[in-house]
Amino acid sequence: MSFRPCGIVTLLTDFGTRDEYVGTMKGVILSIFPDVRIVDLTHDVPSQQIMEASMTLGNCYRHFPAGTVHCVVVDPGVGSDRRPILVTAGGHAFVGPDNGVFSRVYALEEEPVVREISSAEYTREEISDTFHGRDVFAPAAAHVARGDPPEEIGPVLDAYVEIHPPEPDVWTDVIKGEVIHVDGFGNIITNLQRDLFQRQVRDRPFVVEINGRELTKISRSYQDAGVGEFLALFGSTGLLEISVRGGTAEKRIGAGKGDTVVVTVGRRRDQTPLF
Amino acid sequence: MSFRPCGIVTLLTDFGTRDEYVGTMKGVILSIFPDVRIVDLTHDVPSQQIMEASMTLGNCYRHFPAGTVHCVVVDPGVGSDRRPILVTAGGHAFVGPDNGVFSRVYALEEEPVVREISSAEYTREEISDTFHGRDVFAPAAAHVARGDPPEEIGPVLDAYVEIHPPEPDVWTDVIKGEVIHVDGFGNIITNLQRDLFQRQVRDRPFVVEINGRELTKISRSYQDAGVGEFLALFGSTGLLEISVRGGTAEKRIGAGKGDTVVVTVGRRRDQTPLF
Amino acid sequence: MSFRPCGIVTLLTDFGTRDEYVGTMKGVILSIFPDVRIVDLTHDVPSQQIMEASMTLGNCYRHFPAGTVHCVVVDPGVGSDRRPILVTAGGHAFVGPDNGVFSRVYALEEEPVVREISSAEYTREEISDTFHGRDVFAPAAAHVARGDPPEEIGPVLDAYVEIHPPEPDVWTDVIKGEVIHVDGFGNIITNLQRDLFQRQVRDRPFVVEINGRELTKISRSYQDAGVGEFLALFGSTGLLEISVRGGTAEKRIGAGKGDTVVVTVGRRRDQTPLF
Repeated sequence: MSFRPCGIVTLLTDFGTRDEYVGTMKGVILSIFPDVRIVDLTHDVPSQQIMEASMTLGNCYRHFPAGTVHCVVVDPGVGSDRRPILVTAGGHAFVGPDNGVFSRVYALEEEPVVREISSAEYTREEISDTFHGRDVFAPAAAHVARGDPPEEIGPVLDAYVEIHPPEPDVWTDVIKGEVIHVDGFGNIITNLQRDLFQRQVRDRPFVVEINGRELTKISRSYQDAGVGEFLALFGSTGLLEISVRGGTAEKRIGAGKGDTVVVTVGRRRDQTPLF
Repeated sequence: MSFRPCGIVTLLTDFGTRDEYVGTMKGVILSIFPDVRIVDLTHDVPSQQIMEASMTLGNCYRHFPAGTVHCVVVDPGVGSDRRPILVTAGGHAFVGPDNGVFSRVYALEEEPVVREISSAEYTREEISDTFHGRDVFAPAAAHVARGDPPEEIGPVLDAYVEIHPPEPDVWTDVIKGEVIHVDGFGNIITNLQRDLFQRQVRDRPFVVEINGRELTKISRSYQDAGVGEFLALFGSTGLLEISVRGGTAEKRIGAGKGDTVVVTVGRRRDQTPLF
Repeated sequence: MSFRPCGIVTLLTDFGTRDEYVGTMKGVILSIFPDVRIVDLTHDVPSQQIMEASMTLGNCYRHFPAGTVHCVVVDPGVGSDRRPILVTAGGHAFVGPDNGVFSRVYALEEEPVVREISSAEYTREEISDTFHGRDVFAPAAAHVARGDPPEEIGPVLDAYVEIHPPEPDVWTDVIKGEVIHVDGFGNIITNLQRDLFQRQVRDRPFVVEINGRELTKISRSYQDAGVGEFLALFGSTGLLEISVRGGTAEKRIGAGKGDTVVVTVGRRRDQTPLF
């Protein structure tokens, strides 16, 4: 699916919203392409968390129209020799640093084309060592969004950086995953996908354990429990999450990113845990 | 006043701005109606606070052009049998759950028309049990904003959910209200309206009491006191609020939502309080 | 450079994003000028910090297209006799209170024209004493952005309020500056400009001291140190800043706005400090 720009540029950064950094990028984009429509995805990615940015992007970019340019600046390596890149894949374009921030795109799309941003036509004349959002990525995104050909931005790269979210360990009757995100409602989101879970568990009894708490059924919605009670369900992106109706599971369980979650199949709840 | 779309969709949610939830809704809306103009009202309504969302919406929607679609997702009941609704009233349209979040609209507008969103043409094909912002409300708002007729979205409802902010108790010489909101400046906003106050107090002396503090005059602006001093005034929405010039009344008084405020008319300040 | 509107209005306030205040301003602007494009710069300026707003604006407005209207509402004096003003300078327009918030514009542009907003055609009919963002500044910005002539908004003012960021003290071999901002990454930004630094230091050895910590070189980028190590560099606006690679200098040094930074030229690191 080739890329034909639709005039939208989204922004995803870890800049926060208090400084002028985001406003500066918007000004640069509007100066190059006055008819652009700019959409904020988020500027509150935790500072320098590339994996988190990759997953946030991966969870939402496909809901945008084909032809959208997604400009992602979570860039701890600014000023080093990490390369600035343009990725075209699945009808979308992506502009940002080659540090793995597009890993979910590479995983979801067939045959992504990754180019180094090297043409001086697509960037600011003077490039600082501290703010490529302003000097490289915003201008490149604006140029591509207004129709300047991706092919002329620079050479195609054969090798680029990919990072991988932690994969669950899977045995016959045990799946061991981990917490990969806690959302703004305090829902604890794991790396256990619905498909994997259903394939392993089938219709046998199971226990989900996290931080000493045990759950033995999958709920359909956040309403399938009494107020203040725990639930396990598959959330909007298909991952197993632990929630509390009307409360925040994060605070109740005290769980955070990296904590272990274990699903044991065929075990009754009163048996000794395996882990 | 009938509804004629003007191309604007506003968003008001409790999603926060860190996750991809808001970005996802924007993508869905843009995919259905590419020429839409999306305006963020706020995504920082405290989690699941329907009354607060209702008041925030009620305080600002009338400032938008007629023909605006307001999409409100503060939805603790997602996945239960609470209905998704479209309200048309006062030339505006409102999309969200039937949980009382449009109560201020019902109070302010004559003859609101409330429809259940039931037509599959106005929603996503597959509807999750956890994210109706993406699957129901964003699509419905986009369809209505682009001109799809409200009449075809589903049947008119005779009964729908209304919630009421706490009403003040009014006696001859005493009004007893409460704090309903603390704003970002720390101003303490009560449920006492200017009209009620003036009708009861007329030009007699009075004392406003809150958390042991007493105020005996109404100021005109935040400048009508020395720096660090307390004031009582009628804020931008006509409600009595307690402020501190150059400071935050919330911290100084230690007051929060639900605290009592008492106005006693005709009492001199040195008399024993009635409450 | 005269002002010709390009249809963009930016917003910079200290309103935060939780209340309806920003949404209300957007509604007012869209009602007057439906084709406007509104861009949020930030609404998270610390409450009533005029200097900070002035610097944030000064750091980014020039990146926007000529013809942009910048609406700035950091306005502790709302309701007093401080004047509402329209500034045209450098091809841009600025709307806000005459409290010094445009001081960086006056410093950067030649011959700014400052007008009092006094024409009733450019404001709301009824003007409250507490919310000029809604009643004066949003309407004025919308009118100017849609092409209503700046000349008719009110009389030109000869005198207007300017505030000045603290200037460094400069001796032959010592520069004494201070911290003027800590950004969202925890970078400590001082009032020492690259030009001044280079002019004074030339290629001699130097020591930068802040809160007992000493740095003896200027780095090029945030990557020029080991993870967790301190660096001094000139940031994206040309000011000396102290950073920690992969961490936050603010927390490590415990420094904040107003703290002293001293550059001593020609001193070896092991000598007794001069301050």
